[in-house]
Amino acid sequence: QTVESDERALIEVKEGIKFSKDSLFLMNLRFRMQNRAGFNSVYSGTDLGIEQFEMRVRRLRLRLDGYVLNPKFQYYIQLAFSKADMDLETGNIAQPVRDAILYYTLNDNFYIGFGQSKLPGNRERVISSGNLQFADRSIVNSLFTLDRDFGIFGYYTLRTNGSSLFLIKGALSSGDGRNASAINNGLAYTGRLEALPFGTFKNSGDYSEGDLEFEVSPKLSLGVTLSENHKAVRTAGQLGAELYAPRNLSSFIVDGMFKYRGWGVMSEYMRRSTDDPITRNNLGDVRYVVVGHGVNTQISRMISRKSEMAVRYAYVIPNESIEVYQNRVDEVLLGYTHYLNGHRIKVQGNLGYRWLEGLYQLANSGNSWTGMFQVEFGI
Amino acid sequence: QTVESDERALIEVKEGIKFSKDSLFLMNLRFRMQNRAGFNSVYSGTDLGIEQFEMRVRRLRLRLDGYVLNPKFQYYIQLAFSKADMDLETGNIAQPVRDAILYYTLNDNFYIGFGQSKLPGNRERVISSGNLQFADRSIVNSLFTLDRDFGIFGYYTLRTNGSSLFLIKGALSSGDGRNASAINNGLAYTGRLEALPFGTFKNSGDYSEGDLEFEVSPKLSLGVTLSENHKAVRTAGQLGAELYAPRNLSSFIVDGMFKYRGWGVMSEYMRRSTDDPITRNNLGDVRYVVVGHGVNTQISRMISRKSEMAVRYAYVIPNESIEVYQNRVDEVLLGYTHYLNGHRIKVQGNLGYRWLEGLYQLANSGNSWTGMFQVEFGI
Amino acid sequence: QTVESDERALIEVKEGIKFSKDSLFLMNLRFRMQNRAGFNSVYSGTDLGIEQFEMRVRRLRLRLDGYVLNPKFQYYIQLAFSKADMDLETGNIAQPVRDAILYYTLNDNFYIGFGQSKLPGNRERVISSGNLQFADRSIVNSLFTLDRDFGIFGYYTLRTNGSSLFLIKGALSSGDGRNASAINNGLAYTGRLEALPFGTFKNSGDYSEGDLEFEVSPKLSLGVTLSENHKAVRTAGQLGAELYAPRNLSSFIVDGMFKYRGWGVMSEYMRRSTDDPITRNNLGDVRYVVVGHGVNTQISRMISRKSEMAVRYAYVIPNESIEVYQNRVDEVLLGYTHYLNGHRIKVQGNLGYRWLEGLYQLANSGNSWTGMFQVEFGI
Repeated sequence: QTVESDERALIEVKEGIKFSKDSLFLMNLRFRMQNRAGFNSVYSGTDLGIEQFEMRVRRLRLRLDGYVLNPKFQYYIQLAFSKADMDLETGNIAQPVRDAILYYTLNDNFYIGFGQSKLPGNRERVISSGNLQFADRSIVNSLFTLDRDFGIFGYYTLRTNGSSLFLIKGALSSGDGRNASAINNGLAYTGRLEALPFGTFKNSGDYSEGDLEFEVSPKLSLGVTLSENHKAVRTAGQLGAELYAPRNLSSFIVDGMFKYRGWGVMSEYMRRSTDDPITRNNLGDVRYVVVGHGVNTQISRMISRKSEMAVRYAYVIPNESIEVYQNRVDEVLLGYTHYLNGHRIKVQGNLGYRWLEGLYQLANSGNSWTGMFQVEFGI
Repeated sequence: QTVESDERALIEVKEGIKFSKDSLFLMNLRFRMQNRAGFNSVYSGTDLGIEQFEMRVRRLRLRLDGYVLNPKFQYYIQLAFSKADMDLETGNIAQPVRDAILYYTLNDNFYIGFGQSKLPGNRERVISSGNLQFADRSIVNSLFTLDRDFGIFGYYTLRTNGSSLFLIKGALSSGDGRNASAINNGLAYTGRLEALPFGTFKNSGDYSEGDLEFEVSPKLSLGVTLSENHKAVRTAGQLGAELYAPRNLSSFIVDGMFKYRGWGVMSEYMRRSTDDPITRNNLGDVRYVVVGHGVNTQISRMISRKSEMAVRYAYVIPNESIEVYQNRVDEVLLGYTHYLNGHRIKVQGNLGYRWLEGLYQLANSGNSWTGMFQVEFGI
Repeated sequence: QTVESDERALIEVKEGIKFSKDSLFLMNLRFRMQNRAGFNSVYSGTDLGIEQFEMRVRRLRLRLDGYVLNPKFQYYIQLAFSKADMDLETGNIAQPVRDAILYYTLNDNFYIGFGQSKLPGNRERVISSGNLQFADRSIVNSLFTLDRDFGIFGYYTLRTNGSSLFLIKGALSSGDGRNASAINNGLAYTGRLEALPFGTFKNSGDYSEGDLEFEVSPKLSLGVTLSENHKAVRTAGQLGAELYAPRNLSSFIVDGMFKYRGWGVMSEYMRRSTDDPITRNNLGDVRYVVVGHGVNTQISRMISRKSEMAVRYAYVIPNESIEVYQNRVDEVLLGYTHYLNGHRIKVQGNLGYRWLEGLYQLANSGNSWTGMFQVEFGI
């Protein structure tokens, strides 16, 4: 069971279907779906009666990886077809293309990419949605992630004499997110440094949630990202509704992953800032850049060879400048996952509680319970 | 030539492309398209001049079936790409995902599904669009079908000492149709019983139109479905425009299929009801639940090993409560099909007449003629 | 490296993945993507400051070709997933189906098609977007092309005693473009004649830009197309916004391709006309048929076995009747292409200048510079 990566083409993969004509041609074909049923119960101020069932195909993906002409010319294409995948929960422009990128390998330590893929931003986002230990990413990721973008990507591995190593990642991108049209001349500049002081994780575990590999020695990865998005036109840079005027956004991210003997700890801090986050149109309507910060921390333990318990605590705190529009939110989530075939085929149950403005008492309006059952099935 | 089913994964199928790595992995890849050219002539009240040519790709589907890890873990994914397939004739949210469901086989007689697929509703709907003997399903299906939904499905076969058997099918589903967002806490409950007194049809013929197998002894399947859709928010439950207020819908369906020596008879009765079908918004606009009943009957005969003549008569009668908004419609349709490779590759010609309010005279405004030539091509 | 055609199924193709079960079944699976980064600098009247970066996945295609049951029953399906591909730059109805057509081969010289594909119109359009020597087609094609349509297509090859031959192509189609709904009873009638006085080009070079084959003797193809589109409802017939009233459109096209020893010349003249191109709604808003003419000429030379320099000059001149709405536009473009694997894998750089109303001085408002870097990658 090979761990999926969203930062390179998957060449060695056991689960998918492999088409290989000769040493100069490879295509791996894979699919993956996440089916779920759950509920949300929002406290209305007087009772817990506002309840919704969420039953749907959350993700349905088709993935092609391989190389042509030369193993150094690699490609990675990911198409997505569910309503949420295509951004149709929030807009009405279908976006089936998630990843479409070419890679050129210069040497064992350096490869570059040209196309659309994930920016080297927060770890929680860069971890494939197929390697999550909860059904969804955290509220911190929702508000502050850098998401995907189109541009030039570089990935460099700096090896040391010992087992420790450093990863240096950078991207020059449009700053306007997936499948953006030409808008203005502002670009986004993203740099990331990762340190793995105790060497590489088994099976790319630094980008997969949960210690399914039961690391026999402690493994740690620490990352820090800086990103400047010039003349951004969406409320969250690469994501969100259109602003009424462009803004220059700055993002700062620190994250880490630790794994040891079935224990896993992942944590990240994210902050976005801009001068004057509020934009207005002629009618006085407001759209604002989502500025503020948040922290997500997940701790998990394998309770058998194939089962895991995990807990998440996350919060997001908007800047004062937008606090009349955006609440502070806190979230706790308890998760159980049974891995039938690693992350490819798994069954998950989540139970969570979310509260607004730091008022965790059940009796506060807007606080909510959530429960989710999800099956992921893929090759 | 294997008959396609929309109620299970297709494991044994000759037409598609099979990827099998070992006894624990199978994927069948198939596609299917329906290209058509036809006309509609609507009587305007003074002449037959209002005419439209309909020339288009009606359906274009990609289908993946198989199992992973264990032949008991099966999947069925169907993507659809034509404009009509993606619900873009009536709305503007693209819906390429038709089916995305996992099946778990408990034993030879019982399997369950989790995901999005067809509800065990009227036979005409559950028969794959690739197994139809006319270019389109009937007006009865258009108004009253349960269509697809997301939820938990169960399929149980009750065998008797003789050749007769019973199929018991049930589903607990969102009630809001394909790729629905979380809306409220109402669910849909659907149960169906089928009796096959003379045993199974050849090649799953109870869910395929036309007796292409020339049954040597009479075969019969009778089905009855009850479905309750609580807090439905669309005019036809799983389909239709949004209502201004939720309603609880009840559906009752009886259908049957009979085949013998090249003859085929399929018939179904459907009824939908609700308390107070009319909903209004603040402006007084009306949207109503499509309540009423209808009957569709199709009789066909193979006139050679590969050719068939078929006739359909169908009508829908709206309840009095909505009869100011919805007409009674009657339809007769004559069809010829040449099956080059069973239902996979076939050429069809249809000629039909449709009239409103029981006034079948040509001279009535709104009555219409239709002619259609269609080629289906698939693997 | 096989040249892709959009006028027939690709049966013999080396690059794709071939699925062949027996002599009666073939499916070729291919994909192709075009990733690009460039800029547009529009002169504002006072400076060159209005600049946009265009960074995106311009095209992402999946193609299936083959035959079933009999090598004479061929199919060609092409799906497209990028935002521009699906018509989502200009509208909000996703159109992933580009080609979906069945072919029947009557004999070596005659085959017919039924479905959606390119009309036998201007050469620049019929040449696959995978065989272009510039990143985009010309402004002449943008305004006057016949594009794709749904209908019946015929392709006949008339051979002579010598090496010269004639191609006769025709189509009877809906006239309303890709995935059109039934609208009215107007159809489109298209006929085309091509003469190849010096015989066939190597590797279908008459429908591929650039002389990658280094023809050892001069090769020439001349084509002329006439097309009548009755009751057209879009501003450019098969493309464009909806008109307020239908019009009958006439198109006249002459084009040619010449290749010899690495030199390639392609040129086309296109004209569209109609009576009364202006349509108005009740509010007095105007939508007009794009009437007028244009010429595109491209000259290219291979400067090494795998590299090419090309130059384009194109202009479009609207009819006087619409000249208050539509500018005359002139365009020059310089292109360099490095063909790593013919047209399948190539790297392209373009630099161009575009001016309005014949005023080529840089200082005129609306004149613009463009630069584009594009990588095409496909199998």
